[in-house]
Amino acid sequence: MVIFQEMNDFQKWYSIFWKTKYYKNNQICYNSAKPKDNKILLIKQGILSVQTTNRQGEKTNSEILVAGDIVNIEALKEARGEWDIPGLIQYQVVALGLVEIYEIEKEFLLSHLYVDPRQYHQFFERTIIQLINVSFSYAISNKRPQDKIAWTLFRIAEKVGEQHKKDRNLIILPSFVTQTFVSEMSNTGKSRATEAYRALLKNGVLIQRHGHKMIDFKRLLNYLKQEVLSDYSISKATNQADESFFKKG
Amino acid sequence: MVIFQEMNDFQKWYSIFWKTKYYKNNQICYNSAKPKDNKILLIKQGILSVQTTNRQGEKTNSEILVAGDIVNIEALKEARGEWDIPGLIQYQVVALGLVEIYEIEKEFLLSHLYVDPRQYHQFFERTIIQLINVSFSYAISNKRPQDKIAWTLFRIAEKVGEQHKKDRNLIILPSFVTQTFVSEMSNTGKSRATEAYRALLKNGVLIQRHGHKMIDFKRLLNYLKQEVLSDYSISKATNQADESFFKKG
Repeated sequence: MVIFQEMNDFQKWYSIFWKTKYYKNNQICYNSAKPKDNKILLIKQGILSVQTTNRQGEKTNSEILVAGDIVNIEALKEARGEWDIPGLIQYQVVALGLVEIYEIEKEFLLSHLYVDPRQYHQFFERTIIQLINVSFSYAISNKRPQDKIAWTLFRIAEKVGEQHKKDRNLIILPSFVTQTFVSEMSNTGKSRATEAYRALLKNGVLIQRHGHKMIDFKRLLNYLKQEVLSDYSISKATNQADESFFKKG
Repeated sequence: MVIFQEMNDFQKWYSIFWKTKYYKNNQICYNSAKPKDNKILLIKQGILSVQTTNRQGEKTNSEILVAGDIVNIEALKEARGEWDIPGLIQYQVVALGLVEIYEIEKEFLLSHLYVDPRQYHQFFERTIIQLINVSFSYAISNKRPQDKIAWTLFRIAEKVGEQHKKDRNLIILPSFVTQTFVSEMSNTGKSRATEAYRALLKNGVLIQRHGHKMIDFKRLLNYLKQEVLSDYSISKATNQADESFFKKG
């Protein structure tokens, strides 16, 4: 993100408008029950998990955030609407490993962004992409566990996957991506997730090797195209998903 | 939306950058299989439904769009990312009644918005609100049909509800909001939706009177707070939903 470099330049002069905060593994970086309406929390470095609580009081991982994402996106809303439910989803955001977060005065961030519309647009784009992805998660929420999990693996790989140095088609997943983590993020019951996991291991989409969990990207893509995406075409003939768009690196 | 008034002022001079298109009830205004990447479709007036197709080839209503919403939000993305799936959800957008849409050159719209950051921010805010709402729909996708339908009724009332002239607590829903429509938008099976509907009629959240479907807003809100929202609090004691925020008009 360009914004970080620029911000580093300004850091010395404008330091009254922000501070950098550091968190260790498992530390809570934000709790929506104690909102910071005047500050925007922008992730400088690290990986974070958004957690909600279910009826039994258990924490559930529901989203991954990475550098460039905003922790408290609702704080970017200027006005509270008539139909706004404050704290619609109560959540907390937890560090997975070492994390650095810019805590920026909202008014400063906005006016800074207004000066450079391209930077502003980058924030907007990220939100649009997130909206499209979450809309799709919602659209397939009644589908087979296997499909939901395949889609969740795609989303996780996109955010935190690391390309294998020798075989560029393999995406290595970080160790926090356990079966439980995936089942939570995909809104799938644990026992059904186990079956789905087995099926994805069997058809080679998911690979377990030397203690690492990896994804065969082409296979995952083909699976999604054939089993999941094709269901959501207005006209199946016009489905435009094209492998060339997915080539990474 | 402020933008419309301003746009009307500029309309005579800049008409090469846009045109207004008119649609009748049930006309297809947009199909994502034939994207218009260089044009942003901004709703000037009317109500539209976003439809996808299920495995059986049936159309499913999944979202409502109103004045100020953008029909093809994905066109606002500047660059195609490496992990981008083109046409992730194939959808079409259909007019519910008479509709007017501005078809605006993307570059013109963006540069026009850059000049007035507040207008730009309005677009951004709408997307944030949509993201929060869809995220919540996804979070409760495994919950009871009654909860999903109550939440969907809230979303519909927010978008297209009309406040009753005498009893401001009653929200009248338009006639296209049939039980099928609600069950589709809430991702609930039709038979389970019927039960849930009955329960909401019985507890007075939903009212059927003189052929009109209405919502008792206070009851709906209390229902959501007690049955749905409280499940998603990190700390139930800190749930801040407050009726004063919902007063309309």
